[in-house]
Amino acid sequence: MLQEEFSLGELAVRFGLTLHGEPGLKVRSVATLSRAESGSLSFLANSRYPRQLETTRATAVVVSAEDAAHSPVAALIHPNPYLAYTRIATLMHPQASHTPGIHPSAVVSSRARAAASASIGPLVVVEDDAEIGERVALGPGCVVQRGARIGADSVLVSRVNLYPGVSLGKRCILHAGAVVGADGFGFAQNSGSWVKVPQVGSVRIGDDVEIGANTTIDRGAIDDTVVEDGVKLDNQIQVGHNVVIGAHTAIAACTGISGSTVIGQRCMIGGMVGFAGHLTIADDVVVTGCSLVSASIKQAGSYSSGMPTVETRLWRRMVAHLRRLDS
Amino acid sequence: MLQEEFSLGELAVRFGLTLHGEPGLKVRSVATLSRAESGSLSFLANSRYPRQLETTRATAVVVSAEDAAHSPVAALIHPNPYLAYTRIATLMHPQASHTPGIHPSAVVSSRARAAASASIGPLVVVEDDAEIGERVALGPGCVVQRGARIGADSVLVSRVNLYPGVSLGKRCILHAGAVVGADGFGFAQNSGSWVKVPQVGSVRIGDDVEIGANTTIDRGAIDDTVVEDGVKLDNQIQVGHNVVIGAHTAIAACTGISGSTVIGQRCMIGGMVGFAGHLTIADDVVVTGCSLVSASIKQAGSYSSGMPTVETRLWRRMVAHLRRLDS
Amino acid sequence: MLQEEFSLGELAVRFGLTLHGEPGLKVRSVATLSRAESGSLSFLANSRYPRQLETTRATAVVVSAEDAAHSPVAALIHPNPYLAYTRIATLMHPQASHTPGIHPSAVVSSRARAAASASIGPLVVVEDDAEIGERVALGPGCVVQRGARIGADSVLVSRVNLYPGVSLGKRCILHAGAVVGADGFGFAQNSGSWVKVPQVGSVRIGDDVEIGANTTIDRGAIDDTVVEDGVKLDNQIQVGHNVVIGAHTAIAACTGISGSTVIGQRCMIGGMVGFAGHLTIADDVVVTGCSLVSASIKQAGSYSSGMPTVETRLWRRMVAHLRRLDS
Repeated sequence: MLQEEFSLGELAVRFGLTLHGEPGLKVRSVATLSRAESGSLSFLANSRYPRQLETTRATAVVVSAEDAAHSPVAALIHPNPYLAYTRIATLMHPQASHTPGIHPSAVVSSRARAAASASIGPLVVVEDDAEIGERVALGPGCVVQRGARIGADSVLVSRVNLYPGVSLGKRCILHAGAVVGADGFGFAQNSGSWVKVPQVGSVRIGDDVEIGANTTIDRGAIDDTVVEDGVKLDNQIQVGHNVVIGAHTAIAACTGISGSTVIGQRCMIGGMVGFAGHLTIADDVVVTGCSLVSASIKQAGSYSSGMPTVETRLWRRMVAHLRRLDS
Repeated sequence: MLQEEFSLGELAVRFGLTLHGEPGLKVRSVATLSRAESGSLSFLANSRYPRQLETTRATAVVVSAEDAAHSPVAALIHPNPYLAYTRIATLMHPQASHTPGIHPSAVVSSRARAAASASIGPLVVVEDDAEIGERVALGPGCVVQRGARIGADSVLVSRVNLYPGVSLGKRCILHAGAVVGADGFGFAQNSGSWVKVPQVGSVRIGDDVEIGANTTIDRGAIDDTVVEDGVKLDNQIQVGHNVVIGAHTAIAACTGISGSTVIGQRCMIGGMVGFAGHLTIADDVVVTGCSLVSASIKQAGSYSSGMPTVETRLWRRMVAHLRRLDS
Repeated sequence: MLQEEFSLGELAVRFGLTLHGEPGLKVRSVATLSRAESGSLSFLANSRYPRQLETTRATAVVVSAEDAAHSPVAALIHPNPYLAYTRIATLMHPQASHTPGIHPSAVVSSRARAAASASIGPLVVVEDDAEIGERVALGPGCVVQRGARIGADSVLVSRVNLYPGVSLGKRCILHAGAVVGADGFGFAQNSGSWVKVPQVGSVRIGDDVEIGANTTIDRGAIDDTVVEDGVKLDNQIQVGHNVVIGAHTAIAACTGISGSTVIGQRCMIGGMVGFAGHLTIADDVVVTGCSLVSASIKQAGSYSSGMPTVETRLWRRMVAHLRRLDS
């Protein structure tokens, strides 16, 4: 694939950057500082790595004003270099376009409504009463069950599964193996065995939500499970029934959220965090990786309980001491 | 979908409930206490939320005799209100029925045996010698490999994968992305590299088992992995080779069980619990979420080791103190 | 399936084992010591279970020279009995062979290159410019996206998903639901919301790698994510963008590795371990299950932080004491 070239002057104008260097210099790919070559654009988002900047062979770098002084090459300056890099990289690496139409191997119900601009790929299943919005792309093997709705410009990469009646907003991205709307885990006890509680709620997902590979979001027991606008979920996250995740919250991989917990807006949740059920987490909460959140959190701030590794011999003694504290 | 109406009198008779209120009142949907409207049936399973009962606008509620006194609306009384609610909700929200027959896009071996009453959906694969019982429903994209067997009335919702030779009992429900019978994780060391140990056992799953989305259950190394009757597994659970899970045990999401561990009957295991291998866990054991079970548990009771979050600054000091205990 | 019989003499010669017993005795299946019957071959890899050896009804056992003295039946002797057993079991239980050719229900781009000896199963999708090596087997429902490459003799069992441009080496085994090459979790902050960072790197996987069911390996942000030769990954593992996993490292189920962490060679990582990002882990490191690795590990050795369960009442007191240490 031939990559387009962009002049630094053009990039500076387009993205409102200050340029230190020759406007006519051209870049055609992005690279890390240490692997950059002539024709590459790189960036320094974190001043902890100044050495890499000093030795880079990139044609240009995106940096803060402060770091620009140490750049041996042309610099595009922005107060948030990572954001500016992101915009340039998005320009230089456009998403593959999707051809509108229905692949002949797809199984699309005549009772589904799909926009003519939508791309329905090979071996996709779209059931009765599903609604597929404008320019939606359903990659190979996706399953959209009865009455599920997908907003305009959303992409389901492949083998994504939407259960009956769930709804996705606009511009969402769902990665392979994601499952939205499976039954929540609800059972009533009846003399030593379990009776399944019908899960009659649904899942409502807002606009601009990204959902990682093999992540699962259960449908509500009675009311709906809700993921608000701009939420970003990494891979292999589990979202229980009736959870609410507030707008612009980001959650790293392997985290599990038990039923009916409500997480605020703009939270940042690390990987492999476990949330108990029926909690309320305030806006702007940070939880570091491998923590257990077993009580509600009422104030913004950073919370932890992940225990860092030490040598196994020392660890055994620490655990023994902790046990002895009780006596 | 038009929902059927049921009179309170009819529900009381059918499910053996005591009715306080007008037998002729009708309900047509279930709702939570706080969102209920006229025509809704709600329930109070947990007396911790009496305020919601007092202000509900439901037409009727399912409650215990004790709570019935505080109900502002008609009450259907049962000692286990959640169970009674479950039965009514199941009546009001029947499962979608499955049309018998084989979808033309399915790929079904002529050497498979499928009951005429089974429903084999679009893009399903059924390999040689597989057996599909009466009224089984295989949803879109399911894969049933060589010689796998599925008991009557089981439902594989979509994209479920059964490896060769595994067997499922009757009335099981498997959610999207579940994988039953992949190779266990067995390797012999040979001077610094690994040699794969053939996994020649299978998986046997009993009746009335529910398996959540993207849960994985490995086949045995030599003997079989076994999941007994009535076990309920949530999403993203990992069950290693030769594990045995006793009847009516329920396990919450993201829990992992290492090879050859035997879990008793009627256990309740929280989410994100890790079990080491080769353990024996007694019947009626409760393990709370995010615990590590690294030794066998011989007595019924409740066990824990999940460390609750605190503010990150405090947490750092707690960890430092724990380390210092050793000196 | 009729199983072939092998004489002990033949096995001893083929695998360089010392035989104590009749060379003409024949075995036709493998079994555990406790369930073995006449015609079975069993093994004792761990001298902790001598009782099972003493009472076995197997026709022969694979044991160390030391344990052979206690065998009541014929013994095939090797210093690493588990390895010798593995080789015999592999001979006795050969993999199912795959028929070369493309199933008529598969959707294979005319611009893909697939070896004539490859087996492309039902409902597989192979996109433009993908390369499928000699004798590769793609099971039902696999998706190989644009430009992905698969080395000779690799097996994708079913519903495996390779994103565009990723590469797999030779003799790899990928289990159902594995996803290789989904976007890494990268977002730039922009006044309270998140802007997606294009993930333009790929994934390179070496030879002889096994990847478990529903495991996910993300593509690099700029450079590639790398899994070196001989790595064994269990089920439901998450590998973040730009991670490097050194040759012959084995990782148990449910472990998560955050972005840009580099793990050495020949490491053994337990289940449900969490690695923070940007760490470097030395060669030959062992991490026990449910640990959190939040700092780099510079020396080979065994590391832990998983807290073992105790009775819940005792646990509550331990946590309270730990909190009080700070005051």
